[in-house]
Amino acid sequence: MNREIVIINAKLFAPDTPEGFVADGFVEIGAGRITALGSMAHYVPPPSVEIIDAGGSLVMPGLVNGHNHAAMTLFRGMADDLPLMSWLEQHIFPAEARFVTPEMVYWCTRLAAAEMIMSGTTTVADAYFYEDEAARAFVETGMRAVAAHGIIDFPAPGVPDPAENVATVARFIERWQGTDLLTPAVFAHSPYTCSSRTLVRAKELARAHNVPFFIHLAETGAESGLLAGKWQGSPTAYLHSLDLLDEQTVCVHAVWLDKPDIELIAASGAAVVTCPQSNMKLAAGIAPVAELLAAGVRVGLGTDGCASNNDLDLFGEMDTCAKLHKVRALDPAAVKARDVLRMATGHGARLLGFADGVGLAVGLPADVILIDLDQPHLTPFYSVDNLVYAAGGADVRSVIINGRLVMSDRKILTFDVAEAMEMVAGMTAKVRKS
Amino acid sequence: MNREIVIINAKLFAPDTPEGFVADGFVEIGAGRITALGSMAHYVPPPSVEIIDAGGSLVMPGLVNGHNHAAMTLFRGMADDLPLMSWLEQHIFPAEARFVTPEMVYWCTRLAAAEMIMSGTTTVADAYFYEDEAARAFVETGMRAVAAHGIIDFPAPGVPDPAENVATVARFIERWQGTDLLTPAVFAHSPYTCSSRTLVRAKELARAHNVPFFIHLAETGAESGLLAGKWQGSPTAYLHSLDLLDEQTVCVHAVWLDKPDIELIAASGAAVVTCPQSNMKLAAGIAPVAELLAAGVRVGLGTDGCASNNDLDLFGEMDTCAKLHKVRALDPAAVKARDVLRMATGHGARLLGFADGVGLAVGLPADVILIDLDQPHLTPFYSVDNLVYAAGGADVRSVIINGRLVMSDRKILTFDVAEAMEMVAGMTAKVRKS
Repeated sequence: MNREIVIINAKLFAPDTPEGFVADGFVEIGAGRITALGSMAHYVPPPSVEIIDAGGSLVMPGLVNGHNHAAMTLFRGMADDLPLMSWLEQHIFPAEARFVTPEMVYWCTRLAAAEMIMSGTTTVADAYFYEDEAARAFVETGMRAVAAHGIIDFPAPGVPDPAENVATVARFIERWQGTDLLTPAVFAHSPYTCSSRTLVRAKELARAHNVPFFIHLAETGAESGLLAGKWQGSPTAYLHSLDLLDEQTVCVHAVWLDKPDIELIAASGAAVVTCPQSNMKLAAGIAPVAELLAAGVRVGLGTDGCASNNDLDLFGEMDTCAKLHKVRALDPAAVKARDVLRMATGHGARLLGFADGVGLAVGLPADVILIDLDQPHLTPFYSVDNLVYAAGGADVRSVIINGRLVMSDRKILTFDVAEAMEMVAGMTAKVRKS
Repeated sequence: MNREIVIINAKLFAPDTPEGFVADGFVEIGAGRITALGSMAHYVPPPSVEIIDAGGSLVMPGLVNGHNHAAMTLFRGMADDLPLMSWLEQHIFPAEARFVTPEMVYWCTRLAAAEMIMSGTTTVADAYFYEDEAARAFVETGMRAVAAHGIIDFPAPGVPDPAENVATVARFIERWQGTDLLTPAVFAHSPYTCSSRTLVRAKELARAHNVPFFIHLAETGAESGLLAGKWQGSPTAYLHSLDLLDEQTVCVHAVWLDKPDIELIAASGAAVVTCPQSNMKLAAGIAPVAELLAAGVRVGLGTDGCASNNDLDLFGEMDTCAKLHKVRALDPAAVKARDVLRMATGHGARLLGFADGVGLAVGLPADVILIDLDQPHLTPFYSVDNLVYAAGGADVRSVIINGRLVMSDRKILTFDVAEAMEMVAGMTAKVRKS
C-alpha cells in the first residue's frame, strides 16, 4: 500500500468525455505510479499521506516535449529575425564553437529544466553534445528525460574528431543505460551533415542498444538540394533507402514531405515530432501534420531549442500547432485541441519509447500537473480545449514527476533555480560582446 | 510639478536601440503623463511621491488591443474546432440571441478588462452591442477604451428594430463623448450584414462626431460571394465605392485583399487591425500584413473576442503575428519582433485616434507596464525581441494607466476581479445547458 501523495478536490482530465474533465475527484499516488483515482463522493483519504488540496484545480498528465536542445537557452534571442543561413552560419555555429563547454551544457540544461517544469513539462527528449552533462542535470532536477547524444561529421563540442562520433555515443549510452528516469539515445544531426555510412552506423548503434534514434529530417525546402551528389530524391526516401526508418526512429520537423514520403513513414512505423513555432520563426515551412495523423503516423510535439522559438512552453506550442494547421488547410477542424493535447501527452510519451505513455489511469507513471483554473483568462472553462487555446505555462501550479513533488505552488523543490539563472547570466556577458 | 509616481531601478524600453532597452533608469509620472525619465546615475527621487522600485524589471508602454468583443468572454471555448458557418449559425448567433443582456455585457466586459490588464493591455478598442454597459465597465476599471457600438441590419441585442440602428448609436456617442479615458465610436458589423445605405449613414455619423469607424472587412474568402447582387468586385473596392475609407476608418481582419485592395487602403489613409489568432482558429486565412506595412498602411494588432481565440493576451498575439508572417512568406525577416511591438504599442494607439500614441517619452500619456524579467524563460534577455518570442501576459507585474496604478504585483486595485469571475461563472451554467 504505497499511498505517498493524495490530491483531493481536483478536476480530473478525461479527454474522451465531451468536456474533457470530470469535477470533484481525487488521485492517489504511490511508488511513482497512480494507484487510485475517482470521485470525492464518500472518499476518505488514507492516513499518513501528503495531501494536496487542489481546490478545484485541474489535474492532468504532465506534458511531453519531443524535441529540445536544452543547452541552447544560452542563445535565447541572441539572433532573431534573420535569414536561416546567416542565422546558422554567422551566429549559431560560431557561438556554439566558442561557448559550448561541459559547464555551459550543465547549467543551461538546468535553466531549461526549470523553465520546462514551471510550464508543465515532465518529460523531455533532448538532443545535443556534451550530453553527459545534460543527462546529469536532468537527473538532478527530477525530470524524466531522453538524452540523445549528437552525431555529426564535423568537429563538434566534445567530439573534436568526427571519426570518433559513433564510438563516443556508444560509450555515452553504456554509461547511462539503466538510470532511473533517464533514457540515453542517439541523435544523428541530419541527412546532410552526416554521411550515409555515419547514418547507418548511428542507427545500428541505436538498434544494438534498443534506444530511440532521432534525426532532423526535411526541415527546409533546400534539404533535397543539399543531398545532391549522394541521392536523387527526397530526404525521407534517402533515409528509407538506408533502412533508417523503423518504430524506434523519431523524425524531427518533417516539414517538406510529399505524399510518398508520408506513406514511407507510415509504413515504416517511424514517428514524427513537429516543432511548429521553430519552423515558423525560421520560416522553414509548415509540416503536414493533419496528413500525417490521417496516415496513422504517431506525431509528437516539440519546442525545439530556445535559439529558434524562443521559449520552452508547450502550452503555447499546442495553441500554435492547432491554429496553424487550421489556417493552412482553411479548415477549423483540421487539427483539433484534443489532437494536440494527445500529441503533447500520451501519444508523445509513447513515441519516445515510454510504453505506458502518460495519463490519468491506475498503474500509469505518476507524472501529473495541477493547473490553476481560478483566473480571469480561464473563466469560463467549458472544456479542456481551453488548455490549448487560453492557458499558458504560468498557469501550472504544481508538478509531480514519477510520484515526486517537483514543484509546489510555483516553487521548484528539487534544485536551486536562482543559482542556474545566475550561472547562465554570468555566461551571457561574453556572448553579448561576441 | 506633478510627480505622483516614480519608478526607479528599471530597464527602459527603447525600441530604436539594438537591444531595445537601456538599463538602470527611472520614470517620473504626474497628472497622467510621463514628466521625466533617464538614468539612475545621480538620480534622487523627489519627496512626497509614491516610489515603485522595479528591481530590474522592464518598463514599457502599455499594449493596445485594436479589436475585441469584450462581452464574448462568456462564450470563451463554448464551441471550438467547428466549421465557421456552423460555429456562427448553430452556436454563436443563438447564444447571443439568448444570453446577451445589459447585465451580461457589463460583467463580461469587467472580466475581459481584468484579463487584459493582467496581461499588460492598457488600451482596448471594443466593438459590441449594449455598448453603454461596456463603456461603463471600462470606465470603472480604469482602462483606456474606444467603445464602438454595433450597427447591423438585423435585430440585435438592445436594438430590436434595425431601422433604429444608426440613431441608437448617435445617442450612444452623444452620451459618452467627452468622458475621460473613453472614446465612443461606430462599429458597422460588415459589408454583408449592413446595406449600402446603412454603411453610408454609419460613416456619416462617425464623421459628424469625429470618431473612429470600425468595420469587419474581408475576413473570409466567401465575403465577395456574400455581396453578390449589390456589388461585383472585392469588398474593399465596395467600401471605397461608398466613400467609407478614410483616416478614421479601421478595417478589421482585412485577410482577403489583392494588390489593388492594398493600394486603395493605402491611398485612403485607412488603417487595418489584424487578428492573426482568430483568423487561424476560424481558418479564415492569413492577412497580408507584410504587404500592408510595405505599402505604408497603419497596422494594429487585435485579439478579437474570446469566442474565437480564446484569450486576450497580446503577448501571445505578437508572437503568433511575427511567426505567422515569416512562415507565410518563407522569409524570417518578413515581419520582425520590433514591427509587432510597434503595432501593439504606439502605432496601434495612433490608428485608434490617440494622436500621442503610447511610448516612453516626456509628455506622453503615462500608460506603462512593468515586466518581470527575473524568470527562467526570460533568461538570458539580450533584447526586447524576447518580449515577443518568449514573454507572456503572466509576466506583467504592474500596470499604470493615465498615471494611475491599476495593478500592483499582479493585484488589480481598481475593481473586484473575484466578483466579476463569480458573476460570469453564474451565467455559464445556463450556457452550458443550452
